[in-house]
Amino acid sequence: MNFCTACGASVSYCIPAGDNRQRYVCTHCGTIHYQNPRIVAGCLLHWQDQILLCRRAIEPRLGYWTLPAGFMENGETTREAAAREALEEAEAIAENLTLYAIYNLRHIDQVYMMFRGQLRDGFAQPGQESLETRLFHQEAIPWDALAFTVVRETLQRFFAERPNGVFPVHYADVWRQADGQVQVHYA
Amino acid sequence: MNFCTACGASVSYCIPAGDNRQRYVCTHCGTIHYQNPRIVAGCLLHWQDQILLCRRAIEPRLGYWTLPAGFMENGETTREAAAREALEEAEAIAENLTLYAIYNLRHIDQVYMMFRGQLRDGFAQPGQESLETRLFHQEAIPWDALAFTVVRETLQRFFAERPNGVFPVHYADVWRQADGQVQVHYA
Repeated sequence: MNFCTACGASVSYCIPAGDNRQRYVCTHCGTIHYQNPRIVAGCLLHWQDQILLCRRAIEPRLGYWTLPAGFMENGETTREAAAREALEEAEAIAENLTLYAIYNLRHIDQVYMMFRGQLRDGFAQPGQESLETRLFHQEAIPWDALAFTVVRETLQRFFAERPNGVFPVHYADVWRQADGQVQVHYA
Repeated sequence: MNFCTACGASVSYCIPAGDNRQRYVCTHCGTIHYQNPRIVAGCLLHWQDQILLCRRAIEPRLGYWTLPAGFMENGETTREAAAREALEEAEAIAENLTLYAIYNLRHIDQVYMMFRGQLRDGFAQPGQESLETRLFHQEAIPWDALAFTVVRETLQRFFAERPNGVFPVHYADVWRQADGQVQVHYA
């Protein structure tokens, strides 16, 4: 951030009076520009005993498989955001979405909120951000070609819990170690 | 938003190519400025059979009672944000925080994430944003002087569930009707 959104003057990166963190503060009008984490909303949709995955047409992780997910927009609820992503990425209608897992990705200032629900009519086809959409049985999940840790984690929890049909809400931190390895800790 | 944070030129409010919503787009360098909902993290802390509330020293709702809560910052998890707010608003140490309730406030682009935990040693005293902190038995909760709907809802759920000791994660939408009345819908 270089310039103030209110008046266009330069900003400085400093601790405002009465605060305890560095912020971008306008050198002219004094506006403090707060920066906050973003929510990524997504969903695991099943039809009969298959799960919908999308193959990404965009970076990051172009060509890898993912659950429909993306940045939540203003003016929607987290569930509406998850349903919209399914529609945009897979032209899929999500039904009966229920909150399923929260993942904190502190190192990139993101909070994932994953929902669980049914895929209406088993219908999906690629939206603009997908190369391909496909329904997978558990045995066919492309574990080595999944796009993100949170996608793998959500799928693993789901398959572990499906036999009993009990799906509590999960809460976990996901982070990247100095050696590059990704760690997951459920609370 | 009037000016681009990258180059300081004017922005226009329009639908970028390949998008389907209006965004602030720089007329000079073309940067698209996305705006996303913010997370408010907070906690219900109990000590023995009492609950910690803070009386607000700042607007909105100055003078009203609240659970410690505030905007999540970059570089922290949602749970860390909730614990930090308890420390800042009540100099309170939160222990064993567990996710308890998600409230979608679509009309103001906020998502509340409320945690539940213990107040270490029953100790609290006002931080900069509080006029007063106090521990309340259920019978003494100032229901008519609570600051926000999500505070009332979180407390009501807690007292309803405490006898059985089972605290599932709640998910609800909270919105303001045209007549000003606030509605809450649990999913």
